[in-house]
Amino acid sequence: MSEGTVYLVGSGPGDPELLTVKAKRLIEEADLILHDKLPGPDILGEIPAEKREDVGKRAHGKGTSQEYINDRLVELAHEGKRVVRLKGGDSMVFGRGGEEMIHLAENGVDFEVVPAVTSAIAGPEVAGIPVTHRDHASSVTFVTGHEDPTKAESAVDWEALAATGGTIVVLMGVTRLPEYTEALMNAGMDPETPVALVERATWDAQQVATGTLATIVDARDEVGIEPPALTVIGGVAGSRERVADFLNNEQ
Amino acid sequence: MSEGTVYLVGSGPGDPELLTVKAKRLIEEADLILHDKLPGPDILGEIPAEKREDVGKRAHGKGTSQEYINDRLVELAHEGKRVVRLKGGDSMVFGRGGEEMIHLAENGVDFEVVPAVTSAIAGPEVAGIPVTHRDHASSVTFVTGHEDPTKAESAVDWEALAATGGTIVVLMGVTRLPEYTEALMNAGMDPETPVALVERATWDAQQVATGTLATIVDARDEVGIEPPALTVIGGVAGSRERVADFLNNEQ
Repeated sequence: MSEGTVYLVGSGPGDPELLTVKAKRLIEEADLILHDKLPGPDILGEIPAEKREDVGKRAHGKGTSQEYINDRLVELAHEGKRVVRLKGGDSMVFGRGGEEMIHLAENGVDFEVVPAVTSAIAGPEVAGIPVTHRDHASSVTFVTGHEDPTKAESAVDWEALAATGGTIVVLMGVTRLPEYTEALMNAGMDPETPVALVERATWDAQQVATGTLATIVDARDEVGIEPPALTVIGGVAGSRERVADFLNNEQ
Repeated sequence: MSEGTVYLVGSGPGDPELLTVKAKRLIEEADLILHDKLPGPDILGEIPAEKREDVGKRAHGKGTSQEYINDRLVELAHEGKRVVRLKGGDSMVFGRGGEEMIHLAENGVDFEVVPAVTSAIAGPEVAGIPVTHRDHASSVTFVTGHEDPTKAESAVDWEALAATGGTIVVLMGVTRLPEYTEALMNAGMDPETPVALVERATWDAQQVATGTLATIVDARDEVGIEPPALTVIGGVAGSRERVADFLNNEQ
């Protein structure tokens, strides 16, 4: 049995003030913080360099593997360390938090999960878009845009998502925007459905583009939206133009 | 034009340490905090009584209306006040944050949205359940369990939700659990699909029950799960038993 503990901590969307009180305390108290680039420069910049260990994709040579990170967490815990594993957003929303959790338990390491603000909800709302609304959306689905929707073996069923009638939020959704907007229209979604793109939500460099399923690819290119960004699809995306003049969240 | 500002602030799932740093600061700086019971006693108890105004359902006689709250926010802003509208969880996830935002903008009131930790993600994860997992779920859908799924005009299409193949999280999902688990099995979901119920996530009184689509109603009654609670449906719910012995989040 180990004496150390691993804290699986989400950093939120990027604004340091959107860390939870608990995340801030654990970062201060930790012996070591394992992170990649996703928490962003404002949050990482506040952590003393000697307490940080970069385990991002390129930190230890070509493609630091999830196996390396898993083993390093166990090793540090067995040395009795208080370790924070810091992730962008919430660690259990398209992060590998679930895999790390199971690896820790299988190796007898005590751990704690510290929930965070997810960009999937924060991104739309700081742009003036609620992910649900009584009149527009009685459900919201988060899905990753990393997969190619034209591949037969795609794990994401865009037809089923279109049929839910709820809001769809696509994370990491910039590059394949043309493919999945097409897939949703082919599945019967109205081409006039409002769509918004939010790049680097809550960062100084935040950018937003709006349009419809039919026009959002052009809007993306005009505004120059680049990864990381998320896509909000559904009637709720139309609320941005109704509130933008009085919304103080704009960067 | 008003000189005051309204901050639409989520309180997170209930643990005061899961407030964001920003929410904590705004609560301290606010002239007045409008709230209902949902932030929970631990968070509300830390706010001086003279700064709190209860606008919960029964605060101003039978059923304080959303219209009353909307008008009160505008009135206070026009008096130049810094007002925090404090909601449980995140204010844009099955709250009325979207409606309040539009009402404020239409009445010329400056506002800001302060994202929060949503119980919909935090609840599962503090119980050892990631809402997504590479092997089990490439999407997650949040839906409200308030509606009667046997009603023809139900806004929630359980058949479409079952077809997504992703995790389903039902908020306010205790009472109608028998109806929608039945609806999902009728839509073709495997009766052996893992299901977990999490009551009062992150509160001292947190309780968890686990089972399958076929058995969860009995598990609910055995453990005595009562509202407020959420339901996690999908392969990810099976991870709880693999990690529970080393999970320090248990209350």
